[in-house]
Parts: sequence; structure tokens; C-alpha cells
Amino acid sequence: MSREVKLIETITAHLPTRSDTIVGAGDDCAVIDNGPDHSLLLKTDAIVEGVHFQIEDPADKVGHKALARALSDIAAMAGEPNSALITLGLPKDFDQQWVETFYKGLNATAQTFDVAIVGGETVRSPGSIFCSVALTGKVARNKAVLRKNARVRDALFVTGELGGSIDGKHLDFTPRIKEAQWLSEHFDLHAMIDLSDGIAGDLNHICNASGVGAEVWADYLPLSRAARLRAKQGDAAKPAVAAAMTDGEDFELLFSIDPGDAVKLKDQWREVFPETAISCIGKIMEQPGIRLKDEQGIRPLTSHGYDHFQ
Amino acid sequence: MSREVKLIETITAHLPTRSDTIVGAGDDCAVIDNGPDHSLLLKTDAIVEGVHFQIEDPADKVGHKALARALSDIAAMAGEPNSALITLGLPKDFDQQWVETFYKGLNATAQTFDVAIVGGETVRSPGSIFCSVALTGKVARNKAVLRKNARVRDALFVTGELGGSIDGKHLDFTPRIKEAQWLSEHFDLHAMIDLSDGIAGDLNHICNASGVGAEVWADYLPLSRAARLRAKQGDAAKPAVAAAMTDGEDFELLFSIDPGDAVKLKDQWREVFPETAISCIGKIMEQPGIRLKDEQGIRPLTSHGYDHFQ
Repeated sequence: MSREVKLIETITAHLPTRSDTIVGAGDDCAVIDNGPDHSLLLKTDAIVEGVHFQIEDPADKVGHKALARALSDIAAMAGEPNSALITLGLPKDFDQQWVETFYKGLNATAQTFDVAIVGGETVRSPGSIFCSVALTGKVARNKAVLRKNARVRDALFVTGELGGSIDGKHLDFTPRIKEAQWLSEHFDLHAMIDLSDGIAGDLNHICNASGVGAEVWADYLPLSRAARLRAKQGDAAKPAVAAAMTDGEDFELLFSIDPGDAVKLKDQWREVFPETAISCIGKIMEQPGIRLKDEQGIRPLTSHGYDHFQ
Repeated sequence: MSREVKLIETITAHLPTRSDTIVGAGDDCAVIDNGPDHSLLLKTDAIVEGVHFQIEDPADKVGHKALARALSDIAAMAGEPNSALITLGLPKDFDQQWVETFYKGLNATAQTFDVAIVGGETVRSPGSIFCSVALTGKVARNKAVLRKNARVRDALFVTGELGGSIDGKHLDFTPRIKEAQWLSEHFDLHAMIDLSDGIAGDLNHICNASGVGAEVWADYLPLSRAARLRAKQGDAAKPAVAAAMTDGEDFELLFSIDPGDAVKLKDQWREVFPETAISCIGKIMEQPGIRLKDEQGIRPLTSHGYDHFQ
């Protein structure tokens, strides 16, 4: 277990809650009781220079990424985003032009997804630039899709294509807000998560929360062009299947539904979202752990999604 | 104008809002429409190692401070706090014991003020430790006390004592949640702010937002023992009045009410909060700017609250 995971387990074991806390720490968003109509979703997500972006990256795309990561978590609950506050940590000799371009990208994404930017602050950061986004959202009461309700025999689906996000997608992805709302309106989604750490890590979160295991079918993984190109770069290159399983920052949706809904979902999806792939990549099983099935057989997955502390 | 102030003016000029944004950037909290009963308050506040705390400070008090600063902003709206998310930026070789002690202090303060800690994350921070707190709150519809409604002839009040917070109070202050709720229930508060940058800076925020000026009476400023002791430390020491006007991080309430309510407020306050001072320190005037009145006469205030970027 990494030090970060151990730390988070220790921290989350003692957090105070209230009677209106429906879902506390441990899902994509917190869910707070807010009366009979809808529940409140709360999320914070931070990006750090040198970890999630480089200073050479286009600042407007970094601004997009800062907000879009949090939007992706609202999507993973099938929620609708609302208001955001932006905390920007800047060195003493910050570049005003960089900050303005960062906000240009962030504001454009906010407008696209009808998010109000209602405040925040700049603080001095002696090390590197960081940006923490606090985002609220709404979801109809009892309609938030959690990680914990995956059922044995469920079909596992992912949107889009996976792997190689570092080649550009991590700065330029579309949070799946409208796709998740459509899915939630038309299907009974049992469990959902957004892929920030790779299937290996994030499917593990669903399985642990639901007390189940899963089998992933290598041949059905939607491998991105970036992952396939990278896999050809020599003997030391990461195979595309491994990239799809373990690369971070795909920000696609991973969800489980009753297997009887699978064909209907694929058919309807193609009509509504013809430009975005949807793939059935495996199934939920009773046996704990995640197993990868490929031409060589079935074997337990030992690789994990990447961990910022390792 | 400092670079930070200029930056914030540039940023806030272009922020997208929504029809449910009642108050966006520029007050102690954002206020979001949430139906007929109450409005939602949103606040983020970050502390950074080397700026707001030192690594040698007791970690539990740093945890208290991280949450209490945001609570102080909820108090400044006369709101009730609800749920918080904690973003902790840690170096690669972080000290697990420090983090646990930090959370012990933070959780204790959360319990004292009935706040749920509903999530957050740890991220790697290559520079120094930082902690950003995102806090929600509630306030009865149309009862949030803003900065912009101070009126000419209003009496200006502050709670507690001012100055010299760096000697310890900045890690150990009590956010004035119950005091602000009591004030709001019993009096018509025209404008309110919490003192994070000193009266010189924060009264300026009220005056600018309200289109008024103010006169502050030096003899009536409640000087803290820390400010008075520091003033005796030699010729180069800051006078206690200057400390009360410009030291940051007092986290007391500064508010304005009709002058006809002033005596009643002082009398009732003494009965309800006998251990906390309340002082009438000046009045709102038509003429813009802030003037300090002392035994030498009345002069415009040129000093400002401290600015983290200077």
C-alpha cells in the first residue's frame, strides 16, 4: 500500500459528518441532503505544476483542465454542475499574462457547461503554481450514481478511448456531463466513476465499494490512437492494453448496468452520441479482485493505476 | 496598486455567472439561490506554509486555523456552516504524524462548529505544504449580510481585540459564528466583514463596496495585549494603534448599524457575550476614504492592511 493510500485511509476513518451528509469522503463527489427536490454535490480537485501540467503547456488548456477535472467528477455522479470557486497558488514573480490566459480557458469551459465562477482567491505559493477548484452541482434526490452499487453479472462500459492521454488529451478532454445525464435518464446505472487513474485503479474503487470483483476483456478495450502509437516506439514501450488499463487522466466514464440493458444501450448511444465510442469491456463477478482476459487466458491484474505519490 | 490587486481586478471583471448567482466574487462568501427558505454560502480559503503558518507551529493549531479562517467568512455573512472539503498539498517526503495531528485539530474545530468533512484530496506539492478549505453554509433567504450596504452615519463596531495576532491568536482564534448569528437575529446589520487584513484594508472593502467613507477613532480601538506589548519593544516597534489598524489575521467582525441601535447593542451584547469585547470605533461618512482621528487631529489613512504579495 502506498503512503498516500495509507494516509487517506487513516484520515477518512475519523472525519466528522452530519445528519445531512448523504455521501461523505470516498466517492467522486460528496452528496448533501438539500430538501425534497435535489441533493447538493460538492467536489474539489487540484492541479499542480510539474505534476498535472508543465509551465510550457498552453495556459488556456491548463485552465480548461483545472475546471474540467472537477466537472468530470460531477458527471460521474450523473449530476449537473452549478458554481465554482478557484484557488490559484502563484509564485511571487508570477506572470500576469499566464494567469489571464489560464482564466480565459477556464472561463470558456465554465460557459460551455453553464458554471458560474463565484469567487476564490490567489495565494502566494513559494514552490510551484497550483489551482484548486471547488465545484458544486445538483442531482435529483436519490439519483446520484455511486460507486458502491455494482452487482454481480453487471456489464461494464466505458465511454471514449483509453490510454496515452499524456500526449494531449489530458489538457483537452470533454467532461462527460451530458452523456452521464442522458445515461442516467434512460438507464438504471448501478455504479459509475470517472477514469482519472486508469481502469485498473478506478475499477478497483468500484469493486471495493461494492464488495465484488470484475473481469476485463483485453480485446474489447477501446485503445486510443495515442496509446497504439506509443506502443510501437520500441521494445521498452508500454503495450497499448497496459496503457488503456493503467494510464491516468482519460476522464471517461466507467459504469455498470444490468447485462439485459447492454444491447439497447449500445444501440441508443450510437444514435445520440455518434462521435463518441461506447464499449462493453467486461463484467462484474462475485470473486474479489480484477482479472484481465486476453488470448493467453485469464490472469489477476497486478498493475495499478498511477499514484501521484509513488 | 499591488500586482495582486491588479490581477484580481482583471480576473473578476470577466467571470461568468448564472441566474442563480446572488453574490459572486468580491464578498466574504458567494451567495447562491437555493429556493425559498435559505441561500447557499460558498467559500474557499487556503493557507500556505511559510506564509500563513510555519512548519514549527503546532500542527493541530494549523489544522484549526485552516478551517477557522473559512468559518470566519461564513460568520461575516451571518451564516451557519455546513460541509467542508479539504485539499492538502504535501511534499513527497511528507511527515505522516504531522498530517494526522493537523487533521486532529481540524476535525475538533469541525465538531465544535457542527461542520461535516465530506471529502477532499491530497496532492503532491513540490514546494511547501498548503491546505485549501472549501466550505458551504446556509443563511436565511435575503439575510446574508453583505459589504455593500453601509450607510452614511452608521456606527462602526468591532468584536474582540485587535493587533499582534502573529504572537499566537492567528493560530488560536474563535470564528465569530454564534456572535454573528446573534447580531443578525437582534439587529439590522447594514454591512459586515471579517478582519483578515486589518481595519485599514477591510474597512476599505466595506467603504468601496458601499460608496462611502469612514472615520476611525484611535482612542476607541480595542488594542490587544499582544499589540501593546510589541509597541514597547523599542523605537522601531509598531505603535499599538497602527497594529490594530494594519495587522492581519484578527478574524474579528467589523460591521455597521444604525447609530440609534448602538447603545442597545452594547448593553445587550455585554449580557450575552460577557467575555468578548465589543467596541464602537468610528462612523460611516459621505466623504470617500478612511480617516483616523486621534489627539493630533484627523488625517487620511495612508497605511494599508498587509498584502501577501508585497
